[in-house]
Amino acid sequence: MSPTIPETRVLAVASHVVSGYVGNKIAVFVLQALGCDVAALNTVQFSNHTGYRQFKGTRTTAQEITDLYDGLRQSYLDDFDMMLSGYIPGAEAVAAVGKIAKELKEKYQNSPGRFFWVLDPVMGDNGRLYVADEVVPAYKALVPYADLILPNQFEAEQLSEVKITDLKSLAQAIQALHDKYHVPHVVITSVTLSAPESHLSVVGSTMTSTGKARLFKIVFPAIKCYFSGTGDMFGALMVVRLREAVGEAGLTGRPSWLSDDGVAPTELPLAKAARKVLASMHEVLARTAEGMARVVERTEKEIGGEGQIDEKRAHLVKSKAAELQLVRNLSCLQAPEVDFEVVALD
Amino acid sequence: MSPTIPETRVLAVASHVVSGYVGNKIAVFVLQALGCDVAALNTVQFSNHTGYRQFKGTRTTAQEITDLYDGLRQSYLDDFDMMLSGYIPGAEAVAAVGKIAKELKEKYQNSPGRFFWVLDPVMGDNGRLYVADEVVPAYKALVPYADLILPNQFEAEQLSEVKITDLKSLAQAIQALHDKYHVPHVVITSVTLSAPESHLSVVGSTMTSTGKARLFKIVFPAIKCYFSGTGDMFGALMVVRLREAVGEAGLTGRPSWLSDDGVAPTELPLAKAARKVLASMHEVLARTAEGMARVVERTEKEIGGEGQIDEKRAHLVKSKAAELQLVRNLSCLQAPEVDFEVVALD
Repeated sequence: MSPTIPETRVLAVASHVVSGYVGNKIAVFVLQALGCDVAALNTVQFSNHTGYRQFKGTRTTAQEITDLYDGLRQSYLDDFDMMLSGYIPGAEAVAAVGKIAKELKEKYQNSPGRFFWVLDPVMGDNGRLYVADEVVPAYKALVPYADLILPNQFEAEQLSEVKITDLKSLAQAIQALHDKYHVPHVVITSVTLSAPESHLSVVGSTMTSTGKARLFKIVFPAIKCYFSGTGDMFGALMVVRLREAVGEAGLTGRPSWLSDDGVAPTELPLAKAARKVLASMHEVLARTAEGMARVVERTEKEIGGEGQIDEKRAHLVKSKAAELQLVRNLSCLQAPEVDFEVVALD
Repeated sequence: MSPTIPETRVLAVASHVVSGYVGNKIAVFVLQALGCDVAALNTVQFSNHTGYRQFKGTRTTAQEITDLYDGLRQSYLDDFDMMLSGYIPGAEAVAAVGKIAKELKEKYQNSPGRFFWVLDPVMGDNGRLYVADEVVPAYKALVPYADLILPNQFEAEQLSEVKITDLKSLAQAIQALHDKYHVPHVVITSVTLSAPESHLSVVGSTMTSTGKARLFKIVFPAIKCYFSGTGDMFGALMVVRLREAVGEAGLTGRPSWLSDDGVAPTELPLAKAARKVLASMHEVLARTAEGMARVVERTEKEIGGEGQIDEKRAHLVKSKAAELQLVRNLSCLQAPEVDFEVVALD
């Protein structure tokens, strides 16, 4: 299967885990499988993701992040078309990554659309922060430089300072993000509001030339499993599918790839991209769910009698079985078959 | 394209570069693209490979390597079918990686063929060491635990203590590797001896039950460019193609996947695997060579007037253009079309 986008050089900044799939371990494969030349700057190297409740490894310091980027720059390796940033450990490191993005923006300021930054402001979920308090203002200082942000509902509340309780306040939060930060594209992932039972939705918007939100929503069936890395998969797929949709719409020479004001919410490249992203995700998650029992069985057999089958062991085995089954489901990434409807909001 | 091997969990231990392709940056993608679940333990994180003559980044210490593996083990994530080890910085780190392999061997000692270690003893090339002197004995202590080693000609001399000057001494070196270390499978990569002009060869052997070498040779056209990471690509492809060939031959339940004594050198799974590996490599290198002028042109345009086009800059641009074009040439990895002949030696 040939790549659907031209040669695209992406700087991916996120965590690395030796075993399993979160952060750059997802993003790098997804981006490469869809044809991107990926520079992978790993913000941690952990044995496994933290959802196992135990892990070993090291964090990359803010200074090390800066040094790695200096290393790229001094060898003319900083010619990025896009940047995708995910989990970054601590406010100083967030600022260091922001400095890289700002430099790239500045470098290409006279070439509209030449560089595009997709920022996933990883701060927390389900009503609680899982980073230090000072990370929130660190992200707030960076959002004005991003072209697309991918907060979940909780992160959107943190950034917009609007409490989201229904679709109306969700729309207000997105308008606030456009207003406060002038960020042109927003997608709020995993919205639980007002979707039918056992369904989730994403809500997104590309602002008009006057900063007005153009809101769309995509509802999709939820798969009842605890997966890790879904946000990271969303971000990586979004990079490719947005580049693809924007290329088709002939917008790659526009600042932040903005559509004309006359374009309806459902016709936005952002909406088309999100639709395809969700199709791939749904297929990968469904395949992962199908394979979980097999992984549990194989792992239990492997562990054998050693150790009690206690709560801790059960959690570890379950976490392993919930790791996204990406590599043997390349076709779900490349050419998903399911399709979800995009609707305009309001 | 569906994977050609069953679910295979591979521990890949090698270097990571942010930009470009060497070590795990090659191995992880190649293994994943061909369907393996890869645990990637990165022994360094550098901005780019050292062939650029400048880079920034950090090395993973022996203790950090050990800790990461402990992290895997404590969460039942050490259920590896295969291990591929490449560049490891320093003798202590080599010993730490060796300890991991030995533990895995021991863990599966009552399940013949359950675990297979492919060791690329990265020490030097073209007559000189590029690691510290004490790395040589560190590798010598590990080779007895490996199932397949992939030295280049210089590394084979270091390990065998046989000076290789012609095909006869090359055969003696391989026999010495079987004798000294009881290592069942050997492939010596990039042999310049006795190949026609503009050609290279690899020479390999799977020993018989009495430890006698069974030698085969594959000659292939050399592409006149300075590439980095060809050894790493060879190792990663070898993991998949050997597993595939051994599965077809029904040998996965044998210790070290050894063939019957009656199997001719050209019919060894190792020979069949190497043939397919070289086909993929030749296609990827040819595509990379074709694209080099375009990368140079694009990069020169990007750099523009800033800085003289001096020797240093020319070297950096050339190094970038020589980075393997892997991700947009997935079909070369999955289903190469060229074919090279395997011949028996002696």
